[in-house]
Amino acid sequence: MRQATGLIGIDTHGRSLVEVTRAVAQWVAAQGMDEGLLTLFCRHTSASLLIQENAAPEVRGDIERWIERLAPEDPAAYAHDDEGPDDMPAHLRAILTGIHLSIPLIDGRLALGTWQGIYLFEHRRRPHARSIALHLLGE
Amino acid sequence: MRQATGLIGIDTHGRSLVEVTRAVAQWVAAQGMDEGLLTLFCRHTSASLLIQENAAPEVRGDIERWIERLAPEDPAAYAHDDEGPDDMPAHLRAILTGIHLSIPLIDGRLALGTWQGIYLFEHRRRPHARSIALHLLGE
Amino acid sequence: MRQATGLIGIDTHGRSLVEVTRAVAQWVAAQGMDEGLLTLFCRHTSASLLIQENAAPEVRGDIERWIERLAPEDPAAYAHDDEGPDDMPAHLRAILTGIHLSIPLIDGRLALGTWQGIYLFEHRRRPHARSIALHLLGE
Repeated sequence: MRQATGLIGIDTHGRSLVEVTRAVAQWVAAQGMDEGLLTLFCRHTSASLLIQENAAPEVRGDIERWIERLAPEDPAAYAHDDEGPDDMPAHLRAILTGIHLSIPLIDGRLALGTWQGIYLFEHRRRPHARSIALHLLGE
Repeated sequence: MRQATGLIGIDTHGRSLVEVTRAVAQWVAAQGMDEGLLTLFCRHTSASLLIQENAAPEVRGDIERWIERLAPEDPAAYAHDDEGPDDMPAHLRAILTGIHLSIPLIDGRLALGTWQGIYLFEHRRRPHARSIALHLLGE
Repeated sequence: MRQATGLIGIDTHGRSLVEVTRAVAQWVAAQGMDEGLLTLFCRHTSASLLIQENAAPEVRGDIERWIERLAPEDPAAYAHDDEGPDDMPAHLRAILTGIHLSIPLIDGRLALGTWQGIYLFEHRRRPHARSIALHLLGE
């Protein structure tokens, strides 16, 4: 058994779900392992990592509207606004959705279901350069 | 050190929390390891994995009512309804609760607390055949 | 490659976010590894583990007020109250925030971002002795 670590950079275009399945699968394939465990870790407190439906595009719009209801931009609600009104909601959205993923690698493929894609969820209004740390254990 | 991977199939009976602690512990025991790390990954976007109180049955009813408030079935709220009014809420419930778990194995036992059980949370109204991918690293 | 497991005990002072970054980093450093994967697992159903902003103290107050809105203490809302009105909300808060974390170790350091701290989130009103299980794989 052996391990590999790495970083993937993702440039976002403001608040939205960015699919990263292909970039992640390419990094995994380059390590040449057949069986193991992949871990992804988002190194930010205002972006997150999510596995969701990759088929119907309406799903992503529905997720965005729903999370805006649960963690609204509402200047009256928060004490923390160092970086503007989308700062604190971005932290709360990251709490709701999570910032790390662990996915088994079986028979040379990530064990994702048929309809599962990996997404980086940008929670700030403006574009950001995001960094995901990766760890792969396997053989 | 070595690793093992596998799949567990769970037949659900529609929306509910299904305890899988025993099935998971049996799979772990069959690998014959004393110390390590177990990872569980739910291969679906409308079911999830959760660790919760395994003693009081009222807890499961309270969780169900609470999550229905946070991610309601409300046809007016969602654009995505390819598989019916419980389709999009199922995705949102999966986001809230998470789809993967990592649990250390110490002294031959999963490091679960006294009151912790592992549950598959079925979010669709109808029964489904669900698949959990497992990875165990250890010795 | 090798692995290490352990337990860290944290005494909380009732409902609040307790930073544990230093205690965790010290445990990791004591294992003498440069590259690997750290997993933290909270052995309770009414406390959780969270990575959040470690700079602005207002963030922690905003998180507390926000989560009280999403999982309120409301005796009329829950059937389960074996340990008082903060019992069931504590379970729900733990579901929202998660109870396990996986963080790559790269070049001798946890791959946390600049503003990321690790927190134990105590959800009960009274002080509790909490236990976090740790697993480190690496070399």
